[in-house]
Parts: sequence; C-alpha cells; structure tokens
Amino acid sequence: MSTPAAFEAAIKELETHSELVPQADMEVGVYILHRLEELGVKSFFGVPGDFNLGFLDLIDDYPGIAWVGNCNELNAAYAADGYARIKTGSVGAVLTTYGVGELSAINGIAGAYAEIVPVVHIAGFPSLQEQNDKPLLHHTLGDGRYNVYAQAAELFTCSHTILNDANLAPAEIDRVLSDCVLQSRPVYIALPTDIAYIKISSTRLTIPLPRLPVPNDPLAESAAIAEIVRLIDEASGDVAVLVDVGALRYGVAEEVRRFVEETGFAVYASPMGKTVISEGYERYGGLYTGATTRPEIKSQIEEGAKLVISIGALKSDLNTGNFTHKLDVARTVELHHTTTKIKFSEYGGVGMKYLLPKLTSALASSSSSSIKSKALATPVTKWVYPLPQEPDEPIVISQAWLWARVTQFLRPQDVVIAETGTSAFGVLDIPFPNNAVFVSQILWGSIGWTVGSTLGAAMAARERNLGRTILFIGDGSIQLTVQELSTMLREGLKPIIFLLNNSGYTIERAIRGENRKYNDIVNWGWPHLMKALGDVDGTRTKSYVTNTKAEFDALLNDAEFSGAGVMQFVEIGMRMLDAPASLKAGTPVGRKW
Amino acid sequence: MSTPAAFEAAIKELETHSELVPQADMEVGVYILHRLEELGVKSFFGVPGDFNLGFLDLIDDYPGIAWVGNCNELNAAYAADGYARIKTGSVGAVLTTYGVGELSAINGIAGAYAEIVPVVHIAGFPSLQEQNDKPLLHHTLGDGRYNVYAQAAELFTCSHTILNDANLAPAEIDRVLSDCVLQSRPVYIALPTDIAYIKISSTRLTIPLPRLPVPNDPLAESAAIAEIVRLIDEASGDVAVLVDVGALRYGVAEEVRRFVEETGFAVYASPMGKTVISEGYERYGGLYTGATTRPEIKSQIEEGAKLVISIGALKSDLNTGNFTHKLDVARTVELHHTTTKIKFSEYGGVGMKYLLPKLTSALASSSSSSIKSKALATPVTKWVYPLPQEPDEPIVISQAWLWARVTQFLRPQDVVIAETGTSAFGVLDIPFPNNAVFVSQILWGSIGWTVGSTLGAAMAARERNLGRTILFIGDGSIQLTVQELSTMLREGLKPIIFLLNNSGYTIERAIRGENRKYNDIVNWGWPHLMKALGDVDGTRTKSYVTNTKAEFDALLNDAEFSGAGVMQFVEIGMRMLDAPASLKAGTPVGRKW
Repeated sequence: MSTPAAFEAAIKELETHSELVPQADMEVGVYILHRLEELGVKSFFGVPGDFNLGFLDLIDDYPGIAWVGNCNELNAAYAADGYARIKTGSVGAVLTTYGVGELSAINGIAGAYAEIVPVVHIAGFPSLQEQNDKPLLHHTLGDGRYNVYAQAAELFTCSHTILNDANLAPAEIDRVLSDCVLQSRPVYIALPTDIAYIKISSTRLTIPLPRLPVPNDPLAESAAIAEIVRLIDEASGDVAVLVDVGALRYGVAEEVRRFVEETGFAVYASPMGKTVISEGYERYGGLYTGATTRPEIKSQIEEGAKLVISIGALKSDLNTGNFTHKLDVARTVELHHTTTKIKFSEYGGVGMKYLLPKLTSALASSSSSSIKSKALATPVTKWVYPLPQEPDEPIVISQAWLWARVTQFLRPQDVVIAETGTSAFGVLDIPFPNNAVFVSQILWGSIGWTVGSTLGAAMAARERNLGRTILFIGDGSIQLTVQELSTMLREGLKPIIFLLNNSGYTIERAIRGENRKYNDIVNWGWPHLMKALGDVDGTRTKSYVTNTKAEFDALLNDAEFSGAGVMQFVEIGMRMLDAPASLKAGTPVGRKW
Repeated sequence: MSTPAAFEAAIKELETHSELVPQADMEVGVYILHRLEELGVKSFFGVPGDFNLGFLDLIDDYPGIAWVGNCNELNAAYAADGYARIKTGSVGAVLTTYGVGELSAINGIAGAYAEIVPVVHIAGFPSLQEQNDKPLLHHTLGDGRYNVYAQAAELFTCSHTILNDANLAPAEIDRVLSDCVLQSRPVYIALPTDIAYIKISSTRLTIPLPRLPVPNDPLAESAAIAEIVRLIDEASGDVAVLVDVGALRYGVAEEVRRFVEETGFAVYASPMGKTVISEGYERYGGLYTGATTRPEIKSQIEEGAKLVISIGALKSDLNTGNFTHKLDVARTVELHHTTTKIKFSEYGGVGMKYLLPKLTSALASSSSSSIKSKALATPVTKWVYPLPQEPDEPIVISQAWLWARVTQFLRPQDVVIAETGTSAFGVLDIPFPNNAVFVSQILWGSIGWTVGSTLGAAMAARERNLGRTILFIGDGSIQLTVQELSTMLREGLKPIIFLLNNSGYTIERAIRGENRKYNDIVNWGWPHLMKALGDVDGTRTKSYVTNTKAEFDALLNDAEFSGAGVMQFVEIGMRMLDAPASLKAGTPVGRKW
C-alpha cells in the first residue's frame, strides 16, 4: 500500500531503467483490465454496444474478470455502485457504449459521486480517425460534437480522460484510477475503439497503484492529536463517538473499530453510517437522527457527553433528521478525510486515515486504562425493537410490526439493502445483528437504485463469502429497474427480495398528494414476475405472497426459506398509508410549497 | 400561425396597454400548462418526485392535459418523444424531479435532440430559498453545485431556462417553448417548487406562440426559386425527389406532398424519411439507401434522373447505407430548414417552409403541364416485397419471410414502430400501405427506445384517431425498458407487440462477437410477461407464441387478432443468426477494429 507520492517516485525510478521496459507487449484494453483486477474487480458490469464490442472481446478473454451483462445501463451503473460498496477497498466497474449507453448510466454515476462510491465508468468511444473526420455516425447528436458526452461525464466524476494517445494511456489510466480510489468517487474513461487494441508497454504494472492518501503534515497532526487527547482527558472518558458514512468510504472503518474498542467510548451512528460499526458491538447504542432520535441517545449526544467525536460526517437532510442534528460545536471534534475540526478551529490537511491510529496509540500510551474504565462507566442502552402488541391490528401486516419481525430474521453477516422510501425508513428503525451490513442511498435517493445495487452487492457478497443478500423495496420503486432481477437469476445469485406492496408511492404520499392519482401505480402480478423474467419452469426461484402477520411470520420461521438456497421473492401486502415509526415522526422532507 | 417577429411585435403592442394587463391572475405552473395545451399537448409524461409534486397537483387539476405516470424517467422521455413524432405539429412533454429524475431522462432527451423531435423537459427544482442557502439536500451531489443538472441539460437541448424570477417567467417560458417548436429540438425548463405557485399575469396568453420560422430573404428566395425552375425545365421533368426526415420534422410534409403531386416527379425516401410521403402514393418508388438500394432506384437517383431534389436530408451512416449515397452535386438541389443548396452554391437563409409552396406555384404558373406530362413519362417501379419461396425452410420463420408476411398485414394509417436492430432493418425492407406511419430511431439508435416511444405514439395515435399501433422489437432490446408495457395496459391502449425472439443481440452479432457470451441474454418467460406487468387475471391482454410460419400466418389471418381489440403480445421464435435482407447486404456499421 503506497501513497501517491511514493507511487510517482517508484514510476520515475522505473523509467530511468529503460533496459527494463518491454516494448509494446500489451493492448491498452488489457492494461486497463490488469489495473482493475489489481483494484479488486472480479465482476465487470455493463451493456454491449458497437463502440465497446472490441474491448468486450478483451474482457471475455481475460481470466481474472467476469463480464456481467446487464439489462440496461442505468441498472449496470447501480450494480457497479452496489458492488463497490460491499467490496470495501475495491472499486466497481461499468462499461457502456458511446452516447446512448453512457448517458443512460449517468444518474447511476452521479449517485456514486454524491454517495462517495468509487466506480470506474468506461465508455466506448469513436476511433481517432472518426474523431478527426467527424462523420455523422449513429449515437452522435448529428452536429459533430463528439466530446459532448465526455463533457457531461466530467460534471459527475472526480477525474476523467479520453484515451486518445496510446503511449500516454498507461499513465492516464493510472492517474484516473488512482483518483477513483483515493477520492472514493466515480471516474470516466473514454476508450476509442482502435486505441483499445494498440499495444503499449506494461512495465508500469510492476508498480502497484497508490492506495493511501498523502501523509498529514506531521506538526499539524501532532498538535491536533495532543489537543484531542487533552479534550478526552478533560471529558474523563465521557465521550460519545458518532460514526458516519465517511468512515466507511474513506477506508477507516477498521481504525474506528479499534479506536472505540480500545477506549470503550459509547458509539452511535448516523443513518448513512449504520453498520460501519457492527450493531452487535456491546458499546454501540444505535442511530442518532436529530429530533426523532430515541431520547436516551439524543440527550447523551446533545447534552450529556462531555465530548462528541464525529467521524466522517455527511450532514445531509435525510442523514440528520432533516437538519435537526444538534451537535454543540464547543463539545465536538470532527474527523474527516482531509481535515480535522476541533471545536471552532480547523486543522487543514490533517486527515483521519493517519490520525485515528495515532490517536488510539496516544491514548493507550497515556491515560488509556483510566479513560477506558471511566468510559465504560457511561452506560449504553441496548438498542432493541420488540414486536409491538397491536390488538386492534391482529391480522394486517403493519409497518411497526413488520420491521420488528424483520430484525429477528436477520443474521450476522447478512447484507441488507433498503430502497429509498418506507423500506429505508423501516430498516433504519431496527437494530442489526453482528456484522450485518446496511446498504442504502440516503443522500442521492434515486428510486429503483436498490435493484441494480442488489445485483452488485450480491456478486460482491458472494466473492467475500458474506451472508444472505436481502432487499426491501416498494411496489413503486421496483418498477423502475425490475428487469435486473433477471440478471441475478442468470448469475445464480440467491437474494431474498421483500416487496412491500402498499399500492403506490407511499413515501410521496407522506410528503404530498396523499390521494392524488399521480401517486398510484399499476398493481403488477407479482407472483408471475420471476417466471416472466426467466425462471420459466419455476424451478430456480420461489415466490410467495403474504398478506397477514401469521403468513409472514410462518414464512420467516421456515428453515428452507431462511436458508436462502434459491432466489426468493416475497410480496408483502400492506396498507397504503401506513409508514414506519421514523417516517411517522415527521415529514421526511422540509419542503415549503 | 405567426412568426417569431410577429409574436414579438404583438407582445410589445400588448405591453403598451397596461390597462389590459391583469395583475397576478395565474400560477406560473398553470401558465406553462396553458402554453403546452396551446402547442397540442394532451398527455404529459413523467415520474413524481418531491421536487415536482406541487406542479403535479396543478397538472392533476388542469382539465385539458392528462398526467401519464411512467415506470421510470427514461421511458417517460422516450414516451414524450414518441408522442411528439406522431402528433405532428405538437410537442411532447415530460416531467421529472431534481437530479435523480432528470438525469435518468437525459439519454431520451439527447435522442430527441439528435432526431430533431420537439420535447419539453420540465424538471422540478429547489426553491429560491434553497438555491440561496444551499443546504445539503437529498438529490444533490453534496457539494453545493445546485445548477449542475441544468448544465448537463444545456448540452442536449436547444434552449433552456431556470425559472427563478416569476415576473420574467412568462417571457422565459414563451422563449423556450418557441425555440422548441421552431427548431424542433428538446428544451429544458427548471421549475423551482415555490415559483410554480407564484401568481403572475396571464396576459401574454392572448397572443399565440409563433409557429412559423422567420421569413426568407425575398431576393435570395426569388433567385433560388428561379434557378431551381430553370434546372427543372432543363431536366425536362426527369426529376427525382428524395424525401428525408427534415421534411417531417420541420413541418413541410404537406408542402412536399403538394409539390410532388402537382409536378408528378418520381419520389423516393431515405430510411428516416420513410412514410413522410405515403407509401401508397402511385409515384412513390421506395427507399434510397446507397449501395444496398434496389437497382432500378439506385440507377435513377445516381445516374438516370437529370435532377435530384433532396428535401430535409440528414446524412447519417445508417440513413445513407453507411455513407454509400452517391448524389452527384452537379445534378442535385438540397432543400433544408434554413438553407437551400443548388448544385455547388448555397442560398443561406432560404428555408424550405416558404420556398416549397412558392416553387410549386412557380412551376404551376409556368411550364407545369408539360413538365408534369414529361415527369409522368418516367416510370416508377412499384415497390413490392412478395412472400419468398423457401423450400429448404418450410417451417421456421425466417427474416425474409417474416417481413414479407408483415407487409401484407399492415393497414392504412397503422403506426409501425421498429426497434434499432433487426426489427428496423426488417421494416425498412418492406413497403407500407397508404398513410401508414413508420417510426424508428435511426440516427440515435438507443436500444429499448421503442417501448417508451410506443406508449407515447399510441397515446398520440388515439388522440389523432389513427390506426393500430404496432411494435417490432427484439428480445434483447425489450429488456431495457420492458416495464412501460404496464403503462400501456393502464392507459387502455391496444398496441400489438411483436417480439422477435432470436436469443440475444443479433444486431451486435452481425457487427462483432457472433458467438461471444456478451451477446447472450436471459431467455424470459414471455407468455407470463403481461400477467406480471399487471394483467393479473389475463382478461385485458392476449399473449401468443408463434414458432412456425403456419402459426404466425394463422394468427395474422385471425380477424380478432388483426382487429386489435385488446393489447396483444406475440413472441416470434426465430433463428439466432438470421437477419433481414438489408442487414445481410452489408455490415451496418463500418467500424474498423
């Protein structure tokens, strides 16, 4: 694991040894594949098109990476996003064709940008000759603006390149892929059809891509650590740690885990930070969501704890209880990817990747044991969500009951994906078992995202030997991207898909237009869906309909069902206007009309 | 019907009469709806989202326009495109929400741009307060770039606006909508949630939007007409007219029809110009597609005719037989939207909308009758495509046989939509009956487009009392956008959908990777599809499987089937590598690998 500076130095050193440089031994396309494999890519998503078919041959022939053809490009981008989220430390990869393909994927790429997910988007591009002559090709706008899609891509990626010079291609590929990894954001590579096949020297591959950020300024870092240690001492161990999505995306989840375990500090999470710290951890108390937070957590974070250490915060509306977070700046330390904020002052260039382990060590070498014993004296209320007694609702599956039943069903290491809407609010209401993983798109919130994302997450979960992949989605959202269930089937994945059938866009009804026609959708024949999407003889999937608590409970108690030996689709009949507790607690969006 | 200049003059005149101007009598959102209705919009496509729910209430309450909720935004944009194509002289309209929604639609909008289709894209946008404060809202990228989606939209539209000033909104709306109509390209309107409800004066509505381009320069126009008349005289009526898509999109189809009927000139079409002139017209000979053209047409256009008058040409690869058009410039007149080319010289600012009727009149007043009699002496070979005898293929449905059988099945006024791939090549091989309409996306070529487009086309066809809506699509393409069949069902549309099941991306196999895995797709359970998508009890649709010529023939002979009284889905089993004649004639894409 090297830093960008070490990488550059090694490359420079290598280039002085021209005797070591083989001439033109590898196609540009294959060079890309080697680098992607190095970054952990084993599954490559996308859709064929005539501008990428040549590169597809190279993928097809490349042993280390499997092609996963998708039904459409948006779903493919979603899949690459889901894959990158579960294969922590890897990236997702998606291939599209010029114009029509890449533009269909752009919402998926923008979502990865917003949610800090490293996705490599490679788009087939016209040959150098075509770029020069600008013939009126299909997939162009007809006005000669050959680079216009790359201009669009630039808006939603942290780095991009058009590989028009084969000799510069390795350095360009390395630059862009390094940006993807180090910034944890999507990047765009336009690959001309002819360039993909030009042979270049593969020597740079002997130097692994950088995986670590540039080091912190040592003096600023030391000063920041000393000040944080002083504040922790002052707090006498009465410290609350609040973990958010940045901790996961910028690769410090393990450092955070060691920090909280060695200090014993109580730890909480934001919605986007859910499961970054295993929810089975004894000092983990649950979610802090501002105004709607459970009172014991709310009072501790907002008033009780003498110091709050916030790690990787992303203060978006739906991640902060619609901006109702109340963190007292005078009691707060914020650790971020490239900066550290201590109360009212900021230590620029001091990032948490290097700071956190040093902070942990500093505390260990000083007053750690007394801090830890003091910290452990602060109780953390165990987060439970018991089955509610609903004497007036004994039969119909209520939202309140559903999520309580689901929390009992989950197992360690399950990957649980929740669609924006009632599903995400519901899953946020319940605690997860040890090492179960929560996946959702709380900032970007593109409905339908979870279907593609579940495909990618399930591929990654299989590669990592994680547990079951479980999706919760509504009948409105699934209609956007439903076809990708077909790809899960082809790939032999065995997700459990829970379809909350509540007759339309319930999340929108909660915001506006409760009974407006525009929130209605067509009620599909869900039990027929998997047959239509490829399980023609019904042998490779199972579909269920549960309209009562008793039916749902029995299904979840069934060992064969919970064993998830085949792909399973469960329709859950629910009331149209019912909503999870956290959604009922307040309008999710503070929109003025 | 006024021109932009007349419109501006009328508005200026109106504004001098401040006593006529009511103060703030109409919401900005309702003003938009009035203008859209004026432009012919009766169906408004899109997907709800919290940034457009307020405007949706206004749509829901507006009597003249029906909301057609789609399964996803790409399909919605495709539907608006298909709608605009069939409702000639109208525009299509699509509504999306901020960020996630509008970006999902962008490929559909770009396709409309490429193919010169007037689509109005309205996107919900944050309120003025939000734009000012830039809170970290969901659907943003998290970096405060609130206008970034509008920047992307700008790349693929001919005109755009963010309606941040309610008082300027009517003028802005009028400007952008006029550009949409006059340039026949998509436009983008970002509508802030609060602005939609602000009341403004509706006075401008008393002046209809301009529908005609600016007039030609009279001297240049006269000179051009005189020169064309001289060339026609010289040609002694031996003139071939070649009609392309510009004739349709720039609103001169009727002018072209009168021109060819009054002169008797032989008339042909490019693929994108197919059915602009009714294919039942006696002097219509069929398609000119460069090298693969039928010999009698090819020789007449490339050598025989003394003059070729090309109308609204768009010289893209797949519209010119992969750039094998051979039009002799010294024998060619090209009429375009804003320019006229006579042999080697160009008359800038002389557009065909005004030129064509004057040319027709000039010919009538001079030597018309002798020209017409001479013109009629040039024979036009009737385009027929008889059922092929295939003694070695008596059972399996071949491409050659299929399209011959289809041409017999078509009726006058049918709307026939063909997906990019073998479907479009096949439909281009066959003649259509009188006034049947051909719809395809030959320049943009985004696979899956026809499903959304068929929804829009069928809505428009119903509004216009046209015939049946018939879709031809492959098993690969339909998977991209399949869910929109559900919307057709809900809207009570009765399209006939022919699904060519040839086991994957046959068009791609024709280009590269004939047996590569990446061209395979999942074989869906097509007979279950419509049940899954909402016809749960099977009473509102019919699904058929035809694997033999006899079965297909019998189905097409069935009066109930051909009557199209319900939505019908026909799976046609075909060989994987079979292709229509025009596709077999040469690789469709001249890509070098």
